[in-house]
This record gives sequence, structure tokens and C-alpha cells, in this order.
Amino acid sequence: MEPLISAPYLTTTKMSAPATLDAACIFCKIIKSEIPSFKLIETKYSYAFLDIQPTAEGHALIIPKYHGAKLHDIPDEFLTDAMPIAKRLAKAMKLDTYNVLQNNGKIAHQEVDHVHFHLIPKRDEKSGLIVGWPAQETDFDKLGKLHKELLAKLEGSD
Amino acid sequence: MEPLISAPYLTTTKMSAPATLDAACIFCKIIKSEIPSFKLIETKYSYAFLDIQPTAEGHALIIPKYHGAKLHDIPDEFLTDAMPIAKRLAKAMKLDTYNVLQNNGKIAHQEVDHVHFHLIPKRDEKSGLIVGWPAQETDFDKLGKLHKELLAKLEGSD
Repeated sequence: MEPLISAPYLTTTKMSAPATLDAACIFCKIIKSEIPSFKLIETKYSYAFLDIQPTAEGHALIIPKYHGAKLHDIPDEFLTDAMPIAKRLAKAMKLDTYNVLQNNGKIAHQEVDHVHFHLIPKRDEKSGLIVGWPAQETDFDKLGKLHKELLAKLEGSD
Repeated sequence: MEPLISAPYLTTTKMSAPATLDAACIFCKIIKSEIPSFKLIETKYSYAFLDIQPTAEGHALIIPKYHGAKLHDIPDEFLTDAMPIAKRLAKAMKLDTYNVLQNNGKIAHQEVDHVHFHLIPKRDEKSGLIVGWPAQETDFDKLGKLHKELLAKLEGSD
């Protein structure tokens, strides 16, 4: 995603931003209004704006106002209103079929290293997110073993 | 996803469930322990368990303990801890590359009509979520027009 060029409609209303932003990050610059964006919703924890290279009309991004590349880098409080904001945008656009997607890592299709949730309208087969789903066979023994391991790890992380 | 057959590892610990569940819904049955699951995390608002037809090992689902087919059917409070739970699971599995995906509608690849967030490890090109991304050209005039429309709709929905 190249840096935005200025355009008449873009809003640059100044908002105070917490110190947890990164000077070099394009999304942090958008949060600080150093780069204009089509801002839709801003809360204490999140900033939502239109993706300027949409996969479908209305493709929006919701980002935490805390710089971190991966979901597991972001403090919980900066994650709590992301889905309610996605819901509010979906309702405003009167969407009934859409995807919410968050990618971690280049191999997982992440392009900007600041956590961002995509809200992508899905109106037809061609536009929006195209999903490939190589489902594996159900293997209860394997699942059971993994389940035990994960429960032990989760207990350790309480 | 066919109903689960019983297996030694599955947990069926009873938990009180709010009245907002649907008797015929497979995920609501899992929340009420009427169907066993590989339960990982349960909170007041969410229930997380292993997907038994994973696209990659560790593929987990996080569901709100409120029955609704689409994201916009779910009260905000039942959405707030979904992403913190996804984060906790990713950390427990020591994942660095993964996708978080929520699908609304058959055309958007939704299979069970109870909102569910997929946490899908992405370890290689073949397993996990395969993403198709038909990005459109940037059209600032079109974006600007849509932005104005959405701001008006959002104002009306405050």
C-alpha cells in the first residue's frame, strides 16, 4: 500500500495519540493524522478507515491505536472494541454477507506490520475475499493429544 | 461439520448458559455441553474449542455465548473478548504466523449459522487459510463519495 496522496475528501482532524505509536509506521501516521485517511470511526482504542485498495466497495480497516505487528503484540484493551466497530460498520453499510479478517505474518497475507482487521463486503464470487479451505480429515486421537497439550499451556499462561 | 461422536478426550463440564441460545444450533449445543467438544477457554461471553475439521493443526474456533448467525446480530458485550481470547490461544500455541477469520453468509464461506471466529495457524503455503485478494485500483473520487455516504449513515446510527 503506497503512501496516500492528498485528496479533497480526506479528513485530517487532529486526535491525541498515546505514546505507543511508531514514527515510521504508515498506520500510526494515519492515527496521528500525519497522513490523511477516509476516517470512519475513532474510539479511545481503535481507528477505522476505508482501505484505498479495496477488494470490494466498502472494504474498511480497523486498527488498534497501539503499534504492534501481530495480534499477540497488542494489549487486550486495544482489542476489545475492534469487533463492535466492525459490526457497526457492517450495519451502516447494510451488509449481510461479509468477512472479517486479520492476518499475522507475510505468509498469512499480512502487508502492513501494524495489526489491522479487514471488514470486507462479500457481494459476489469475484470481488471481496476469496477463501481457500484445505480442510483436513477429523483425527480424534490427534485432536485429543493436541487438546491436552494446549490445556497444559493455557493453564501455565493464566 | 457433522455432529461430534463421543471420544475419550472430549470435555463435557456443565456451565450455566444464558437464555440467548438456540436449541437446534450445534454450537449452542456445544456451549451447553449437550455435544462434547475439545474446550480450550470459556468466559462469561465466549467459548473456544478446537475445530474438528482443521485446515491446520491448532485451528480453533471462538464463539459468542449468544446465538446469532451474523456479526451484526451479536450484542457488543458478547464480542469484546473474542480477540483477546484469539490472542491468548495464539500465544499458548506460540504462533507467529496465523489468520483470524469470521465469515458472514454462505457466499462468504460461512458453514455454521452461529457467529464463529477462526484462529488458523499459517505455517506453510499449503495448509491453513488460502487467501485470494482481487484488489481494485485506487479511485479517490469513488472512495470520497462512499466516505461521505458512510459518515452520514454512521452519524444516523450513533
